[in-house]
Amino acid sequence: MINEKLPKIWYGGDYNPEQWEKEVWDEDIRMFKLAGIDVATLNVFSWALNQPDEETYDFTWLDEQIDRLYENGIYTCLATSTAAHPAWMAKKYPDVLRVDYQGRKRAFGGRHNSCPNSPTYRKYAERMADRLGERYKDHPGVLIWHVSNEYGGYCYCDNCAASFRKWLQQKYGTLQNVNKAWNTRFWGHTFYDWDEIVPPNALSEEWEGDSTNFQGISLDYRIFQSDSLLECFKLERDALKKHTPNLPVTTNLMGTYKELDYFKWGKEMDVVSWDNYPAYDTPVSFTAMAHDLMRGLKSGQPFMLMEQTPSQQNWQPYNSLKRPGVMRLWSYQAVARGADTVMFFQLRRSVGACEKYHGAVIEHVGHENTRVFRETAALGKELGNLSYALLDARVQAKVAIVFDWENRWATELSSGPSKALDYVKEVHNYYAALFDENIPVDMIGVDEDLSKYEIVIAPVLYMVKSGYADRVKEFVQNGGTFVTTFFSGIVNEHDLVTLGGYPGELRDLLGIWVEEIDALPPEEKNQIVITNDTGSLTGTYECRLLFDIIHSEGADVLAEYGSDFYAGTPVITRHAYGKGKAYYVGTCPDQAFLTDFMKTVCAEKEIAPLLNVPKGVEVTERRKDGASYFFIMNHNASTVELEIGEGTDLLTGKELTGATSLEAYGVMIVKR
Amino acid sequence: MINEKLPKIWYGGDYNPEQWEKEVWDEDIRMFKLAGIDVATLNVFSWALNQPDEETYDFTWLDEQIDRLYENGIYTCLATSTAAHPAWMAKKYPDVLRVDYQGRKRAFGGRHNSCPNSPTYRKYAERMADRLGERYKDHPGVLIWHVSNEYGGYCYCDNCAASFRKWLQQKYGTLQNVNKAWNTRFWGHTFYDWDEIVPPNALSEEWEGDSTNFQGISLDYRIFQSDSLLECFKLERDALKKHTPNLPVTTNLMGTYKELDYFKWGKEMDVVSWDNYPAYDTPVSFTAMAHDLMRGLKSGQPFMLMEQTPSQQNWQPYNSLKRPGVMRLWSYQAVARGADTVMFFQLRRSVGACEKYHGAVIEHVGHENTRVFRETAALGKELGNLSYALLDARVQAKVAIVFDWENRWATELSSGPSKALDYVKEVHNYYAALFDENIPVDMIGVDEDLSKYEIVIAPVLYMVKSGYADRVKEFVQNGGTFVTTFFSGIVNEHDLVTLGGYPGELRDLLGIWVEEIDALPPEEKNQIVITNDTGSLTGTYECRLLFDIIHSEGADVLAEYGSDFYAGTPVITRHAYGKGKAYYVGTCPDQAFLTDFMKTVCAEKEIAPLLNVPKGVEVTERRKDGASYFFIMNHNASTVELEIGEGTDLLTGKELTGATSLEAYGVMIVKR
Amino acid sequence: MINEKLPKIWYGGDYNPEQWEKEVWDEDIRMFKLAGIDVATLNVFSWALNQPDEETYDFTWLDEQIDRLYENGIYTCLATSTAAHPAWMAKKYPDVLRVDYQGRKRAFGGRHNSCPNSPTYRKYAERMADRLGERYKDHPGVLIWHVSNEYGGYCYCDNCAASFRKWLQQKYGTLQNVNKAWNTRFWGHTFYDWDEIVPPNALSEEWEGDSTNFQGISLDYRIFQSDSLLECFKLERDALKKHTPNLPVTTNLMGTYKELDYFKWGKEMDVVSWDNYPAYDTPVSFTAMAHDLMRGLKSGQPFMLMEQTPSQQNWQPYNSLKRPGVMRLWSYQAVARGADTVMFFQLRRSVGACEKYHGAVIEHVGHENTRVFRETAALGKELGNLSYALLDARVQAKVAIVFDWENRWATELSSGPSKALDYVKEVHNYYAALFDENIPVDMIGVDEDLSKYEIVIAPVLYMVKSGYADRVKEFVQNGGTFVTTFFSGIVNEHDLVTLGGYPGELRDLLGIWVEEIDALPPEEKNQIVITNDTGSLTGTYECRLLFDIIHSEGADVLAEYGSDFYAGTPVITRHAYGKGKAYYVGTCPDQAFLTDFMKTVCAEKEIAPLLNVPKGVEVTERRKDGASYFFIMNHNASTVELEIGEGTDLLTGKELTGATSLEAYGVMIVKR
Repeated sequence: MINEKLPKIWYGGDYNPEQWEKEVWDEDIRMFKLAGIDVATLNVFSWALNQPDEETYDFTWLDEQIDRLYENGIYTCLATSTAAHPAWMAKKYPDVLRVDYQGRKRAFGGRHNSCPNSPTYRKYAERMADRLGERYKDHPGVLIWHVSNEYGGYCYCDNCAASFRKWLQQKYGTLQNVNKAWNTRFWGHTFYDWDEIVPPNALSEEWEGDSTNFQGISLDYRIFQSDSLLECFKLERDALKKHTPNLPVTTNLMGTYKELDYFKWGKEMDVVSWDNYPAYDTPVSFTAMAHDLMRGLKSGQPFMLMEQTPSQQNWQPYNSLKRPGVMRLWSYQAVARGADTVMFFQLRRSVGACEKYHGAVIEHVGHENTRVFRETAALGKELGNLSYALLDARVQAKVAIVFDWENRWATELSSGPSKALDYVKEVHNYYAALFDENIPVDMIGVDEDLSKYEIVIAPVLYMVKSGYADRVKEFVQNGGTFVTTFFSGIVNEHDLVTLGGYPGELRDLLGIWVEEIDALPPEEKNQIVITNDTGSLTGTYECRLLFDIIHSEGADVLAEYGSDFYAGTPVITRHAYGKGKAYYVGTCPDQAFLTDFMKTVCAEKEIAPLLNVPKGVEVTERRKDGASYFFIMNHNASTVELEIGEGTDLLTGKELTGATSLEAYGVMIVKR
Repeated sequence: MINEKLPKIWYGGDYNPEQWEKEVWDEDIRMFKLAGIDVATLNVFSWALNQPDEETYDFTWLDEQIDRLYENGIYTCLATSTAAHPAWMAKKYPDVLRVDYQGRKRAFGGRHNSCPNSPTYRKYAERMADRLGERYKDHPGVLIWHVSNEYGGYCYCDNCAASFRKWLQQKYGTLQNVNKAWNTRFWGHTFYDWDEIVPPNALSEEWEGDSTNFQGISLDYRIFQSDSLLECFKLERDALKKHTPNLPVTTNLMGTYKELDYFKWGKEMDVVSWDNYPAYDTPVSFTAMAHDLMRGLKSGQPFMLMEQTPSQQNWQPYNSLKRPGVMRLWSYQAVARGADTVMFFQLRRSVGACEKYHGAVIEHVGHENTRVFRETAALGKELGNLSYALLDARVQAKVAIVFDWENRWATELSSGPSKALDYVKEVHNYYAALFDENIPVDMIGVDEDLSKYEIVIAPVLYMVKSGYADRVKEFVQNGGTFVTTFFSGIVNEHDLVTLGGYPGELRDLLGIWVEEIDALPPEEKNQIVITNDTGSLTGTYECRLLFDIIHSEGADVLAEYGSDFYAGTPVITRHAYGKGKAYYVGTCPDQAFLTDFMKTVCAEKEIAPLLNVPKGVEVTERRKDGASYFFIMNHNASTVELEIGEGTDLLTGKELTGATSLEAYGVMIVKR
Repeated sequence: MINEKLPKIWYGGDYNPEQWEKEVWDEDIRMFKLAGIDVATLNVFSWALNQPDEETYDFTWLDEQIDRLYENGIYTCLATSTAAHPAWMAKKYPDVLRVDYQGRKRAFGGRHNSCPNSPTYRKYAERMADRLGERYKDHPGVLIWHVSNEYGGYCYCDNCAASFRKWLQQKYGTLQNVNKAWNTRFWGHTFYDWDEIVPPNALSEEWEGDSTNFQGISLDYRIFQSDSLLECFKLERDALKKHTPNLPVTTNLMGTYKELDYFKWGKEMDVVSWDNYPAYDTPVSFTAMAHDLMRGLKSGQPFMLMEQTPSQQNWQPYNSLKRPGVMRLWSYQAVARGADTVMFFQLRRSVGACEKYHGAVIEHVGHENTRVFRETAALGKELGNLSYALLDARVQAKVAIVFDWENRWATELSSGPSKALDYVKEVHNYYAALFDENIPVDMIGVDEDLSKYEIVIAPVLYMVKSGYADRVKEFVQNGGTFVTTFFSGIVNEHDLVTLGGYPGELRDLLGIWVEEIDALPPEEKNQIVITNDTGSLTGTYECRLLFDIIHSEGADVLAEYGSDFYAGTPVITRHAYGKGKAYYVGTCPDQAFLTDFMKTVCAEKEIAPLLNVPKGVEVTERRKDGASYFFIMNHNASTVELEIGEGTDLLTGKELTGATSLEAYGVMIVKR
């Protein structure tokens, strides 16, 4: 349980009373109660308010708010306010301002824009955490610490450059090692002095964000910047822990956000929390994958849904409303996949600045007679009724998909073979095939223990880190099924090619040699022709993007290319290895192939869908104390008929026996 | 009359004899006479020539030119030459150079690039106006002052930052008021010292030109920059007025140009002038709207067409020729809508630099045997024949469309609900519906007296400035018809939301409450289903972009949505209010709806088309001394048959009685 | 012969042993021998290695490599290593770093990024060449000097600004001349002091790379920057020549690369070399044109194919493999058009940084059992068998196409009439029509002697340099056929318009006057209606982009426009002039027209295709010592049947008599 003081699914969200006059506060409380809200996130962006100048701290407003909420039965998720430095600080200590990718020194503005290696920022952010820890350590209303907010972005200033050099010294010891790791003899880049190394941005090695002349330095800079922000988090966390060793600390993450290696971050957080903002056209499977990924950061431990919108966002190009029922549906989707909280940005809509058209529990109209409020209040009531039933319940998956930020960075920094290769999209293709079958999946990092799984899928495992190939081999040796794809096994953790033939360290495991990799524009297709019907795989499928030219070195050839000069050569292979099997998919297949492929692989391992349900119905399972909770979620805009078997619907209390129906956007939580 | 010295429609344009050798000048005069040209704009870009260094002024070339023209019966529209600072000034006083949106200090180059808050620029621009005023105050050839040229663009330098802070102090008095107006407690932006405020650009609060974190500062900066340039205009104007209190002063504007609040500018100018440069695909209704807008800047006072091309532009992507007859047609369109001059850029094509492929009365070939010259000369003769007949004649409209630059800025700075919302396009949609019906329209600012009108249309009246709602209510109370649309009544003049339910201050007038605003990609359509046939409104129309979810609070529901979860809820409403009516259009309708809607609204007020004419024929009316002048303009590429009634065609002298025909691109001015 | 030491078609490419451990070197030699490789380019990017600090030079690694290669029968193409300055130099002497188009000072990174006017760069680059010249002047393994690598890019720093001013003083003598040449009275740009002139970039006169306010300064800056880099080349060349007056010196060019005036460069090089990197969708005729252009730089002298990929590139969006046979086919295409070498980038694939996915003779797998290696080795053997047969053989063409970089820059800097005008594309349209007919073409600069040709085609001869019109007239007078197009004869070498009617100095030659130029979006078409069937020209063709409105002043009208207001006016004209003819094409025709047009013009001159072959088969001829070598290249993916007549196929030794067949991607070299 995140905090036993509130033994239920927390319900609430970001609250900014400091933006409002006193008169509004009582009305807030009245409506929070109507909505069943029991947690409010305070102090996210109040640094300037808390510390009006270098010497002065003033928390009286915060004292008052925490007290007032607590007196009304509402707990506080207490942020540290360091997500945006004060204007006075930017003016007095410009080192807090970042230098951007274009090499431009930023001026005051925006948020999340403090240089992570700014001595001033570090000093005052840590001090703020320390003051808050000291002041509120004994307040019964505080449930959890929320450090900063949505960390992100990189800086390229001189302080970062200096810190980068120190970081490199620590990582590599000698310049010679750096030169080797980055292969600096290419293009005459040999460094003879640490100070010759400058951050890779649009003024030096990079362009267009993802293009670089030197993958090595660009990769290291991403790791370094992610680490630098993580250092900032740890500074605050440690300052808080000094005062409240038992209060959990989190910071809100952003799903598949590109710039931070969240698996490293997860290790430093007591509980993972994240902000879920699908666009109007985000596939529901993508959101599911993001939830599973966030759960995976701490090996399956339940997480917090820290933010979602009650209805509308403001920063998308087209900010559609969540259709009636969808907010509830997506809230349960989070819980279904491991969330123990349902929280919103924001409790009351702001009156000015750029988020005033972002949805809120309390809209600009200010009263409770709105569709959005009614839906929010209904959900609040439902969650209240659930009480602690689901808390700490675990999702259990026999299938894991590997997701690795460093591999992602390396893949996208690669010059060639195809600009169209998108790591997250490739991962999602596999995830979606399993999602459609309602087969539970864990999204795992490369540090995760593989022995828990029957099947491990590693799409585009371009970078194979030291020791990882051996761990995968051991997994297969012991009976596991491993699936990987084109552009795998190519480089080590420095993005240096593993010589001797692709897929490098995975070659003997997969029983193949990839001689060449063809790349064609996305509109040019080839075919996957199944030569030996295997499980659900039969006939011909389409493929595109990259086309490995493969020689079997012991692997069974399940399918061949249908056209081009490599027609008739292997495209899908399977290799028996120890007690297990290793599959290789040498191209980017259409979704029909992946569906049949995942069915086949799962069937071999006797992994079945959680339930057989109509298309568009999502099913997950959370388990706790021997009980099973099936979440059945209808993403269709129409009612579906289901055959569920016996159980109790937690939401209605109804006993289920046989056939039942589920309304459009409806949800059931069936306990067995 | 702009200047009684030349009591006719002025005919001429920009003339740069300083770019040419003496030999050419006599030829110029010969051809000007052939073309009936009687006014030449001199000295637009001659600052470097007039002031070769800080101490020296030399106007001998200008003396000679003005004299020579005057001796040949050609008057001078005398520019002040401050539209491009000299290179020596940029080198010696870099404060004249702007800092751009990206935060980069500009180098010497281009034009219209002086920082409006540069002390150097202000000092020397004012001094130049003073010298010119003194020197030419008694010259009989000078008709009007033309200050600078096409003012525009913003600067973000330190001088502007300092001036901005002073401007804010003047506007808001205290920092506390600024903090409140900009809602700076959002994202911890509270300012404690004026110097903490920095200009909002790509280094601070903004990106991509129209996106901002803080609407308040971004809006104020636009007002401030528009004001700063206006200050520059006023400095020169006042310096000139000292010497020539009775000579009119203008500067040439640019229609719907975004960056300057032309309604403020109009107030400071004796006569409005503007440059009309439609692209090859600009709808003729858009040009018409721009003319009406320019006329509206001074409440209907006739304006100057300062520039248009005789045939071709050079800076469009594809610079098509004006088809034969079109230059004449579009010249009369200007006059038809209130212009008392027809002037060109340029009288002779330059030989080098970026405008050498811009059309001119005298082309590179140098002689009069060109299509363009023949058309120009024919028009010159015609305008000569018209003499003073049309001067000062007024357009009279019972319908007004509100256009407000601050509202436009605020709308486009808004983060959400839809990136596709384009203020000018929405305004033009309504304008075009009335244009197609040949119903006269005034384009008015928010300071305009509404009692003159029967119908006032305010598309996307997002920002309702202090007192404006009351003025609209008074107008309707007294019998007026008011039409507004989705995304209206949302904010006050600081872009702070009017709480208590949309459309805010207009809610009781409109008799509705807008609970939610859905936004969908432009390709997704809904339907406007007319529930009570009203006037021409019947059946079903399409709509897109934004979809207000409306509750009637007294308004009649004329139409409902046809689909989505708000199918069957109101989309078009009409509310009886006092003696008048207030219409609300809750979405962006197709043009078919707007045509029927405008017909309906006009019919209710018994406002009929000026004439019933075939499609593609534009009709306007100017009135003077009891006479009516109907301009009938055929934009079709083929002859049309017309039934005009009695009158005299001013251009041919022909008496009209019944049916007549008008050739492709033809024009008639029928006096009644 | 480039160097008589290696009297055959050189075969090899870029080799970077310094990136590898010793162990690999022996394997390299073994495989080079298997592949028939006899030349390796060394030291391209080794500056940092050769000169680890300001005082130290260390060439021991290079000594060892050159020796080792030579001992194994492999010669060295010795680069000077100055293509990327060392990191220590960038740190110690920031003047070597460029300022970019955006005005930003670059940091260390990338390559080809030294400021060409940096005193430091010039000093140390020259010194490096001097040291290399001295050290290796007597080494028997060194075949040729390869200065720097792929020169390119512009700089806008203060050193460049100062050098630009000196360059202008040299070119123009007085500021008055500069002001006149640039027409600075336009927009008040008169300069009174040299120091007022600043480089034209995004901070001053230009935007988006090709748009400018002042064509004059922008054109001069391009010439100046091309000259500046050429100065750098000459500094190194002269330093080398001091030591090895008889060793040829080259630098590798890049075909139609925009930024350097290669005709000027060709004059300074002993032999032209270039790097051929077609994208997956580059037309084969475009590659052919590039070869012919490179051959044209030194008036037909054979050139070096310095780089091509054995199979795959890495920096294209989609890096497709060269299909089996295509590498051989394209290698022979180079030889067929004048190359006396076939060389690759790269001999061994690098292990890290951005080119590791660029194809190589030795792939990452490291052994010879790859398709790519097999094809490389087969070609090596074939070229070995050819021995010196083809060396120095000349292509002879009766048709020339004029290509001029300054004209290209001026055309693309022009503001109006159409943004869609692309000089190289227009040139290629004509080239492609001749290529399809297998009619040999020389690509010539404006300094080339015209009397060698029967037909001279100058598409878009916008800029007519001093004296050029007279030379063209003399050519036609003497019986030549001249073809030019719309937007020709417009300006002189300063981009100042030739007054008196387009096409300026070419008007009497062409017997026409172009009164107006219409420009329409690319999708809008007109028709070329043949009025007098002439040769193959008959019926109606399509045209687009620009439409000259033409008056014949003596020319025959071959075709008229089919529509628009200029329907029925001339579009294609032919003017008898002296003993010759001058054609004018007043628009951008479709390819069908150009095919028929080129057929017609060639037929009039009795210029026939080299051979009559099926579509997709390319034929060229090289001649030497009275023998004729016909290259017949099948670009089709299927076998074709040919009727070639008598001869010997050099590649197979087969005697040909009548019909023969050529396999997909096959090549024959038929000696007669």
